[in-house]
Amino acid sequence: MTPPVPTIGFDADDTLWHNENIFEQVHERYFALLARYHDAATVEKALFATEMRNLELYGYGIKGYTLSAIETAIALTAGKISPEEISAVLSLGREMLDHPVELLEGAREAVEHLASRYRLILITKGDLRDQERKIRKSGMAERFFATEIVSEKDTRTYGRIFTHHGIDPRHFLMVGNSVKSDILPVLALGGSGVHVPYRITWGHEQAALPDAAGRLFRASSLAQLPEIVAQWGG
Amino acid sequence: MTPPVPTIGFDADDTLWHNENIFEQVHERYFALLARYHDAATVEKALFATEMRNLELYGYGIKGYTLSAIETAIALTAGKISPEEISAVLSLGREMLDHPVELLEGAREAVEHLASRYRLILITKGDLRDQERKIRKSGMAERFFATEIVSEKDTRTYGRIFTHHGIDPRHFLMVGNSVKSDILPVLALGGSGVHVPYRITWGHEQAALPDAAGRLFRASSLAQLPEIVAQWGG
Repeated sequence: MTPPVPTIGFDADDTLWHNENIFEQVHERYFALLARYHDAATVEKALFATEMRNLELYGYGIKGYTLSAIETAIALTAGKISPEEISAVLSLGREMLDHPVELLEGAREAVEHLASRYRLILITKGDLRDQERKIRKSGMAERFFATEIVSEKDTRTYGRIFTHHGIDPRHFLMVGNSVKSDILPVLALGGSGVHVPYRITWGHEQAALPDAAGRLFRASSLAQLPEIVAQWGG
Repeated sequence: MTPPVPTIGFDADDTLWHNENIFEQVHERYFALLARYHDAATVEKALFATEMRNLELYGYGIKGYTLSAIETAIALTAGKISPEEISAVLSLGREMLDHPVELLEGAREAVEHLASRYRLILITKGDLRDQERKIRKSGMAERFFATEIVSEKDTRTYGRIFTHHGIDPRHFLMVGNSVKSDILPVLALGGSGVHVPYRITWGHEQAALPDAAGRLFRASSLAQLPEIVAQWGG
């Protein structure tokens, strides 16, 4: 038997490149658009409720977000919103899709450093075409032996990916900003995780860090990753 | 060397189950919604132009279709459309996403017959979550050794799938309703194809059937598939 190949998994949005800050900017403009009807807190709460109600049908990603934002705007203004204002929401969505990819500090260096020593796999959720575009724009696609764009990051999804690529969870380390999507399911399957929190966490992704001595690491930036990986050992 | 395993690929929408007929029904209701502004032909032409302009950004699928339908409705009515009418378009989109899966005649029998003799792979494009939901609802997921949900069906995509699953194109037969997405790229890579036209073909998928004696078959229903596969030989 050949020894198992240690594999490092990377989340993409808010781990390798900025994402929530684009949503944050768009939110501000969306709140401004509806400011004459409601305060920002009311709009934010209503939008989140619409997104959660539509999640099963729309899934994650910018297109579903835009549809939920239009639905919320109509509901919150009791139909008084103008078609021009709805056009503005459509434009916000297209702008987000067309946004340049801005890598996080230390991301490129960490990925390039580790790519020569480990198998790297990218595991991300969201709209298929949008994620593909960002991976291409990042210029790092070649560093990963595989890319998995999935509709949900739970133990079932990770289990399927492990089987498919012959990954032994005991030799798998997942790096990501979401405790819920990147850390908990991987730890549950016997793998290890590096939590690299992003400045903003979307309400749906919030979860408490578990207790998993030796298998759970924390970093404030990907610049610390090579050192943590050395500590992990594979 | 082990002999190559013959593999049969299946498209999903309008090959295994109805899809365009759902769009057709929704189109009728969308035309009716805009009937006091424009005739159906004008609306259809404008919607198709919007979809083509947004295709690179939105990709295929119902969410992008809904966003394009809202954009078209606002543009075609010079902003006179009401928020209630836009809500109606949002509802049409959600209805489509929630639509039951209606298998085409002979689909289940053909898949079950062939699954015991060949490796079957499902290759479909569209929204990730929507396609996953339809595959699950079809009750046929287990018959396929792999499922590939892709953002575009061109030679690059098929080439990647062949490499990934160790498929020799000379022993690969693709079954689908779209000449452009299911037949042409597979023939170009040296594979074979069975064209099973659907009653309706979306404008973007229209293409002429090529000349490829011995590697291109036509069927009017999947009920003919076992016979065609026997003729192909693998």
